[in-house]
Amino acid sequence: MPDPTAAGPAYWLRDNCPCADCRDPRSGQKLFQITDLPADLAVAAATEAADGRLEVLWSDGHRSTYPPGRRTADDGGDRRTESGKRLWRAADFVAGIPEADWSAHLADPAERAAVLRAVQRLGFAVLRGVPAEERQVLAVAESFGFVRRTNYGELFDVRVEPNPTNLAFSAAAIAPHTDNPYRDPVPTVQLLHCLANEAEGGDSALVDGFQAAALLRAEAPDDFAVLTRTPVPFVYRDRHTELRADRPLITTDGLGRIREVRLNNRSIGQLDLPEHELEKFYAAYRRFAEITLRPELQLAFRLAPGDCLVFDNTRLLHARTAFEREGRRHLQGCYADLDALASTLAVLDRRTAALDELAELFEGEGAGEYLGEAVTQAEHMLQAAALAQQAGAPDALVAAALLHDVGHFTSAVTGRQLMAGQDNRHSETGADWLAQWFPTSVTEPIRLHVAAKRYLCTVEPAYRARLSEASEYTLQVQGGPLTEDQAAAFAALPGAADAVAVRRWDDAAKTAGTGTPCFDDYRPLLARLMAER
Amino acid sequence: MPDPTAAGPAYWLRDNCPCADCRDPRSGQKLFQITDLPADLAVAAATEAADGRLEVLWSDGHRSTYPPGRRTADDGGDRRTESGKRLWRAADFVAGIPEADWSAHLADPAERAAVLRAVQRLGFAVLRGVPAEERQVLAVAESFGFVRRTNYGELFDVRVEPNPTNLAFSAAAIAPHTDNPYRDPVPTVQLLHCLANEAEGGDSALVDGFQAAALLRAEAPDDFAVLTRTPVPFVYRDRHTELRADRPLITTDGLGRIREVRLNNRSIGQLDLPEHELEKFYAAYRRFAEITLRPELQLAFRLAPGDCLVFDNTRLLHARTAFEREGRRHLQGCYADLDALASTLAVLDRRTAALDELAELFEGEGAGEYLGEAVTQAEHMLQAAALAQQAGAPDALVAAALLHDVGHFTSAVTGRQLMAGQDNRHSETGADWLAQWFPTSVTEPIRLHVAAKRYLCTVEPAYRARLSEASEYTLQVQGGPLTEDQAAAFAALPGAADAVAVRRWDDAAKTAGTGTPCFDDYRPLLARLMAER
Repeated sequence: MPDPTAAGPAYWLRDNCPCADCRDPRSGQKLFQITDLPADLAVAAATEAADGRLEVLWSDGHRSTYPPGRRTADDGGDRRTESGKRLWRAADFVAGIPEADWSAHLADPAERAAVLRAVQRLGFAVLRGVPAEERQVLAVAESFGFVRRTNYGELFDVRVEPNPTNLAFSAAAIAPHTDNPYRDPVPTVQLLHCLANEAEGGDSALVDGFQAAALLRAEAPDDFAVLTRTPVPFVYRDRHTELRADRPLITTDGLGRIREVRLNNRSIGQLDLPEHELEKFYAAYRRFAEITLRPELQLAFRLAPGDCLVFDNTRLLHARTAFEREGRRHLQGCYADLDALASTLAVLDRRTAALDELAELFEGEGAGEYLGEAVTQAEHMLQAAALAQQAGAPDALVAAALLHDVGHFTSAVTGRQLMAGQDNRHSETGADWLAQWFPTSVTEPIRLHVAAKRYLCTVEPAYRARLSEASEYTLQVQGGPLTEDQAAAFAALPGAADAVAVRRWDDAAKTAGTGTPCFDDYRPLLARLMAER
Repeated sequence: MPDPTAAGPAYWLRDNCPCADCRDPRSGQKLFQITDLPADLAVAAATEAADGRLEVLWSDGHRSTYPPGRRTADDGGDRRTESGKRLWRAADFVAGIPEADWSAHLADPAERAAVLRAVQRLGFAVLRGVPAEERQVLAVAESFGFVRRTNYGELFDVRVEPNPTNLAFSAAAIAPHTDNPYRDPVPTVQLLHCLANEAEGGDSALVDGFQAAALLRAEAPDDFAVLTRTPVPFVYRDRHTELRADRPLITTDGLGRIREVRLNNRSIGQLDLPEHELEKFYAAYRRFAEITLRPELQLAFRLAPGDCLVFDNTRLLHARTAFEREGRRHLQGCYADLDALASTLAVLDRRTAALDELAELFEGEGAGEYLGEAVTQAEHMLQAAALAQQAGAPDALVAAALLHDVGHFTSAVTGRQLMAGQDNRHSETGADWLAQWFPTSVTEPIRLHVAAKRYLCTVEPAYRARLSEASEYTLQVQGGPLTEDQAAAFAALPGAADAVAVRRWDDAAKTAGTGTPCFDDYRPLLARLMAER
């Protein structure tokens, strides 16, 4: 028996048992409580298989089987602390800031993922070409998450009108700050959408608050420690509102990693601390605030009408430079949260990984010969998709044509074995495998595309006569033509017509040397369909 | 010169300068940055006045005047850590749990404040009689804050239908847990509204997670320390969602006070820690989870249709006992946040304080004689309000009648001085003072009630003839009857008719010995009007 401690402590190992009694196979949620485990839980026996799988018999009789490499964390680790970020200075963006076109963000999942990843890793991104209309900022927020309503409503206006009586206020610079520090939970994402900016000056600036905090930690560790341990009262009060949050200027996690920055002198209430601590706090606070003003940290850029800045309000400080001369300036802003943004990005990444896996199948096994035909498997499927497109088929049927034979790659029984007389049920296995990501409008025509061939052989004698030699052979392995009753039952299925259409493109897609689009050309179409599932 | 350090450190003192250049007088928001203060800021001169006010001349020339008692904190201190809570055990509620009737919660600000204070201090309250209809839970959330939308939507259903094939799952007990630990920011308030509960068993239970954490700290301080410093990956994954938050099971603030509890074994992902730390973590986790199961901590009660449980999801663990026998059970839930709840409560408290101040005026100065009439000032105003009510006047005019002479108490010039021939402009000063809390529908008739007397004397000779001796005297002090032109201008004012109505109740409210309602009877009406401002 292998040393069970080598597999990790008993409770940790048991808590991560992957069996269906311990974890819901769909959601991965655990089905037991930690207190359900016996107080004297121990490994009774452990066996390591040749492939690395670990079999454990527990002292309470439960059996667990762990896959090889069982010590992998659930996924990429913590994404909210500095360890999940790329800290920056203004010079890091001489080549340009992270930005994307609004229409591309909406249409192309890869573009959307890049925008969200920039917000997650760098703390911000700018969308260009968002219609300069009121309330559009809400559409931007809804493209990745949920608007957080506050006492300001769904959105708020940042508006400066030319007004000489009010010059001092409206033209003033606003120092780098985070928003709503008096709120807890603080809004973790802020959006600012520019509707008009005719002022001279009034540019936007961003500062990486994590970078500023890391500099403070390096230059004055005692000051850093003071700011992380001192709760500061942030307050806001108006007619209908009275908010207060007691939070440090810099929050670290249990491992000391920077996790959140709050900096906004406007809202700091009266600290109630012993005098020597007040002295230390104010010295540390001033030092930190001075760091945020260093020119090398200030990333300045100008928002033009249609630009929407999306940023992490737990990390980035935003500022406005002073006006040189006034003009109309109107931004609309709203708040949202990082957790939904990260979820949207993770789901997009999950779909990208699936598309990468498909691309690899096309390039790898797909380059092999196609059941005795003159084209490779990949050429066959790409030709089928091209025929569907030429026929003006809807996206789902183009995808079905493209992916109809994926089961040949994913089945335990290969296409080669099918040719040796063993049905690999590739329409079923392919449809099941694809159902992880694609809606039934894609998977069900695939599931029925072999039945469709058997159906057509029954109802169209000329169809059968046109079958290739290999296809006539596999027809027999797959059960031969349907009986008249079976054919009637097939025709009555809701997806029969779509399956027949895919089948005809399948049969026609065996011409050697036809130029076809490549798999990557279909990625946007496939990504859109994945989002429909 | 007094010792300036006795007033607190220089930057702290200057940061809290209350002058209008340093702080917006309305919002209390500061108008400068901490880095705007000179690096060598010092007190140049300080003078303490006899009344305790401190005058400071700063080295940069700025002058500050601090009120007496300048070291008071902004308000009640932190409300989110254990220091702002009353920790409990089940036995603390033998006399009943905090509850209120839904209609009273809506109609009576004092009742609503009591509910919200229970959620803030104890972590929960139950509203009874919320219509057992779908989506009503959203109305409960909107009564104190904003619904937090998540991937589950605006609300979610917790539904058990009688279904023998599914007994094991549906009848199972659910151990005490917090919701959505994989979300960051986690929803801080949860609502559960019972629409049907025909099951036997399936009762609800709550555990004070702060109490459980405090017990762990007392009984096993090392385990407590392990749980506060170990980030735990909480994960959730479905077709359209992939959430992850790395947070400790117990969060403390910089002063070591318990601030948040997350406990939910279902969602704990695979911890990636060195083995000896995994060992320690699991020992501490099991001990904490076992404490939450102690019977003396479990507060069990049954939700009946129409009950809505509102609780602090950063503190309270909720659980469901096992079913004895199944039946239909349907709850609808949603999430909201503590910051808006606390704001709503603070604003209600602010209004209550204003009503208390008014009540004191009625009891104190109001008990004095009323400008030579046979009633006290309080009797006079209460009679005026009663007359307005008898006339079927709208609430705002009842309030205006009740409060029309408040200016006599709040003016620098007293009613006594008015009787000595100096106009105290009590209609103006009273209206201005009341405008802090009341809408213009209340304050403007008060502002015009003296002008209304001068107007009526002009247009109704019989009115003037009926004036009391004292009123005829004050008429002269207040400027005598209006000219014809002035009367026409007055009549054209939008609030003229309301002011005349108040004036007539004013004039009629001078009868000694008439029984009147007391001030407290008007509190709900006044509180409703305050909410309209």
